[in-house]
Amino acid sequence: MKTSIATVCLSGTLTEKLHASAEAGFDGVEIFEPDLVAAPESPEEVRALAMRLGLTLDLYQPMRDVEGVSEEQFADVLRRAEAKFALMHRLGMDLVLCCSNVATATLDDDEVSASQLRRLGQLAEGYGVRIAYEALAWGRFVDDYRRAWRIVQLADHPAVGVCLDSFHVLSKGHDPSGIEQIPGEKIFFLQLADAPALEMDVLSWSRHHRLFPGEGDFDLRRFVGHVLRAGYTGPLSLEVFNDTFRQTDARQTAVHARRSLRWLEDALAQEAAADGAASARDDVRPLTPAAPPTSFDFVEIKAEDTSHVEAMLLAAGFTRRGRHRTKPVVLWSAGEARVILNEQHARDLAPHVAAVGFAVADAAAQTARARELRTPFAYRRAHASEETLVAVTAPDGTEVYWYGASEDEPAWTAEFVDGDPTTEGEVTSIDHVSLTQPWQVIDETVLFYRAAFSLEPAGGTDVASPRGLVQSRVLRTPDRAIRMPLNVAPPIVAERGAGSGLTQHVAFRCRDAVSLAREGRGRGLDILSIPANYYEDLQARFDLPDDTIAELRSLNVLYDRDATGEYLHFYASAPGRAFWEFVERRSGYDGFGALNAPVRLAAQDSGRNHA
Amino acid sequence: MKTSIATVCLSGTLTEKLHASAEAGFDGVEIFEPDLVAAPESPEEVRALAMRLGLTLDLYQPMRDVEGVSEEQFADVLRRAEAKFALMHRLGMDLVLCCSNVATATLDDDEVSASQLRRLGQLAEGYGVRIAYEALAWGRFVDDYRRAWRIVQLADHPAVGVCLDSFHVLSKGHDPSGIEQIPGEKIFFLQLADAPALEMDVLSWSRHHRLFPGEGDFDLRRFVGHVLRAGYTGPLSLEVFNDTFRQTDARQTAVHARRSLRWLEDALAQEAAADGAASARDDVRPLTPAAPPTSFDFVEIKAEDTSHVEAMLLAAGFTRRGRHRTKPVVLWSAGEARVILNEQHARDLAPHVAAVGFAVADAAAQTARARELRTPFAYRRAHASEETLVAVTAPDGTEVYWYGASEDEPAWTAEFVDGDPTTEGEVTSIDHVSLTQPWQVIDETVLFYRAAFSLEPAGGTDVASPRGLVQSRVLRTPDRAIRMPLNVAPPIVAERGAGSGLTQHVAFRCRDAVSLAREGRGRGLDILSIPANYYEDLQARFDLPDDTIAELRSLNVLYDRDATGEYLHFYASAPGRAFWEFVERRSGYDGFGALNAPVRLAAQDSGRNHA
Repeated sequence: MKTSIATVCLSGTLTEKLHASAEAGFDGVEIFEPDLVAAPESPEEVRALAMRLGLTLDLYQPMRDVEGVSEEQFADVLRRAEAKFALMHRLGMDLVLCCSNVATATLDDDEVSASQLRRLGQLAEGYGVRIAYEALAWGRFVDDYRRAWRIVQLADHPAVGVCLDSFHVLSKGHDPSGIEQIPGEKIFFLQLADAPALEMDVLSWSRHHRLFPGEGDFDLRRFVGHVLRAGYTGPLSLEVFNDTFRQTDARQTAVHARRSLRWLEDALAQEAAADGAASARDDVRPLTPAAPPTSFDFVEIKAEDTSHVEAMLLAAGFTRRGRHRTKPVVLWSAGEARVILNEQHARDLAPHVAAVGFAVADAAAQTARARELRTPFAYRRAHASEETLVAVTAPDGTEVYWYGASEDEPAWTAEFVDGDPTTEGEVTSIDHVSLTQPWQVIDETVLFYRAAFSLEPAGGTDVASPRGLVQSRVLRTPDRAIRMPLNVAPPIVAERGAGSGLTQHVAFRCRDAVSLAREGRGRGLDILSIPANYYEDLQARFDLPDDTIAELRSLNVLYDRDATGEYLHFYASAPGRAFWEFVERRSGYDGFGALNAPVRLAAQDSGRNHA
Repeated sequence: MKTSIATVCLSGTLTEKLHASAEAGFDGVEIFEPDLVAAPESPEEVRALAMRLGLTLDLYQPMRDVEGVSEEQFADVLRRAEAKFALMHRLGMDLVLCCSNVATATLDDDEVSASQLRRLGQLAEGYGVRIAYEALAWGRFVDDYRRAWRIVQLADHPAVGVCLDSFHVLSKGHDPSGIEQIPGEKIFFLQLADAPALEMDVLSWSRHHRLFPGEGDFDLRRFVGHVLRAGYTGPLSLEVFNDTFRQTDARQTAVHARRSLRWLEDALAQEAAADGAASARDDVRPLTPAAPPTSFDFVEIKAEDTSHVEAMLLAAGFTRRGRHRTKPVVLWSAGEARVILNEQHARDLAPHVAAVGFAVADAAAQTARARELRTPFAYRRAHASEETLVAVTAPDGTEVYWYGASEDEPAWTAEFVDGDPTTEGEVTSIDHVSLTQPWQVIDETVLFYRAAFSLEPAGGTDVASPRGLVQSRVLRTPDRAIRMPLNVAPPIVAERGAGSGLTQHVAFRCRDAVSLAREGRGRGLDILSIPANYYEDLQARFDLPDDTIAELRSLNVLYDRDATGEYLHFYASAPGRAFWEFVERRSGYDGFGALNAPVRLAAQDSGRNHA
């Protein structure tokens, strides 16, 4: 499908935006007027640059406050409009967005608005321009696409049609199915934006919090389905006002934006296939299907010195499985939990999650899908005799590998030599991997895992740390084989570089957390101390037996309960950073002990201060 | 008046919070339960520390979901409550906050809630504890202080009273005058928070956006007036949930918080005085009155090398008034606009506004007031024969001086020697000083200027720069003698350290901007280039005569118009940074050319890229 992006979605100057859009593979752009007004390039230069870059200039936007006004005011509207139509002619553009009046409307009358749009259309026609009229969600009188369409019908002019914007329809809770009543050729343009479900005034919501498709809570698949069934033949175009994207590198944002439309196109194709119907349009291309990962294959930890991690793994019952035949990495495992330690000659590099591996049903399909989504592939040297692991780099820099799932240990483990045989222990698998995200990339990260690996977002929460709120969002597979909480550290903590230790960790699933804590302690596992006050509060909250509380307290095991089950968990500290969690899930407990997180963060903070 | 602060207002561990509260001069604290639960100190240790610091422990908070429940659930409430009452006994505390039920209430019945509160009161009494019942703005059934008071009346128990929180009353738009109907002795506690007027769900508003009194849009003077007239005798206590204060240094936040109550206390005293009445309480102390500044006295620019600034000032018609007798600073002036240049031996220190000076009617009163507000005084060496200028340091590090206003030039200018005499020119005064604020201190800065110098906040706006949105807020005196726009740069720009050049500048008022631009250009003034596209858009917007547009365009002068007047302005660039604006206000134009700001920011950005 043809794609377009409004220049307001991207950071930088107009020429930077055009370059970034073209490089990311967009077919066209919407020119946001303030970007042009502030540009030193003439309209002719902008037109020539777009042509050289292979970009069409799809929509000039916005013209404001053009209808619903007195005839005296309308004379000024026509004067203003004519200047813009002449400008569009110089740009070689033929479509302008006119949004419903916000500021100057005094006449709440469809006939008046229609008459004024008709005359605007007559003027536009002379310049080869068409008018796409859009109901803003905060329009003074016209704030519903159905009314905008009635007005366009009344205007009854070939140069006057509607522009549909998913935000303006869905933010108001308007039923989008009425779109199918509009003839496709009268839908002049389609603008797409996702958004989180927020309760706030719709103007602020729109100006600051729009997201690319797949990152928010709007059902864009359904919305666009209606538009395509109406017979719309134009591009899918993104118009996303967002405080973050205004600041971040335009090239990266454009790639990310383009990926969101590729994901949406696939969703449209899947829906048509599921309905057993052909797509409403024959240019809707699916991605190569790839089932969600079936488990964590491994995590890779990089550090200047991994010896503290090795001591921790040993105390937790892990086995050293050996050194890789050709690469300077070591494998440790316990059950199906595999940890690769990778020492780097990098001064003071603290242990961190450098990579996660997913077991997938069809590695080749996964690779094809990742390519189609233009995820950046990571370089990894492999010798001829070795298994090929493919990886992409997530927006936060973490490398994500995949490898064909198997009943037995994956074949790549045979490349590790001179190690010990596995033994049965308490730890069975990797339960979840919690990654710290810079605030600039959290939305992009959600889309990355969703589009490439079919992880689904499952709500978010704020967790209080002693140094600020940590924003947490969870990604997971439907069967919970993969759970990845993503945490955004408070900006000041993040600036100090102290954030990742507080909010990034690998959690291992175990059979019996209390037994593992006791055994681990015996083997020297350094378990994070939890204050006595916590256990007194726990007793008040849950009315657990005294001896249970005493046992948990003596072992520093935390406890939580939800509607279905229980969660027992504890943390292993490493000098300066606590990095490892051990969890026992009973009877289908589905959370992460959110109520315990502030206590854990405070305990880590106090450990950090003393370190 | 006795003051208190909830530990949730401050960053850090519980002991850090107690220390910060005591150092800032608070009399007591509210213990926010999660802070205690996460603390390694025992309740007895917390009690002992508070005693040593001279802090009373005023309120334990919160107990949630205690009323409106089934009798079966209420048995669990009593069990939970008894554990907390026992804990409070160990802390030596006698007042607990119980908020209206959010999660578990099933019975929307005043009699039920009253009966349960009464029995809770009976249990509490045995531990020497009293219950302050508060209507949360998002309570399931009880969300109005008037209903909470009815329930307390029905409960009819000496250990059961109400807690009033300004946020919960004012966020709902409830009339606070009904507070005067509550007997003072039944108002067990008063919590204060200000907040910006936002349209969003009240829970998010409360959890993330509360502010200290004087920083938001609530009329706290009126609110507290009602509470005092009701006969409340307890402390003024702050409960401010705010994402920023959770991260910033607890000591600084506590001082800032304490200042907000001092400001509020003064406002209460002023109101009583204005009404010709005695204060409702005899412990309400006014500050030393100080009228708002009457003009800018000077600005001081620090840099490693000020030669480019001198060249700019010369080209703009300023006179070099000479070097200070003992200090290494130089004075330039034009009309009443005075600029002090201060070269520092600091590598690559770019020119920035290091200080602003205000002319004030009564310098001694201003000094007394600043002292009472505990503003940090700046050190400045002065010789015996010299005028003494007193200064405080604003939260962003800018030094703020004041000096007695006079008809003639201020006496301190006589300390500058070997300069040229003044001449009459286009520039007449300093129009405004626009300062860049780190996002962490913008609210504190607003309170600082408001409390110490009686500048009033006058709305805010977002301005789009090519690298993100700049949040702008204006402080000014009622007569507009002082205008200070405060800008918060987008975080990524701020992290790069490139933000201040974009958003900080000194604006000089001139008689005729077009003449000054023409003369300045003849003298080599480097005026920021404005794109031709801007002038084409200007013509479309305002329908100005062609020759006016042509003249503005040839001189790079920007134009704006409001309901009363016109604004003509231009910017002078210095290498790497544009730092100076020249403005002409016609017929009472009251703004800053907000529509032109994105064009200016883009032009500066493009200059920066080429530099």
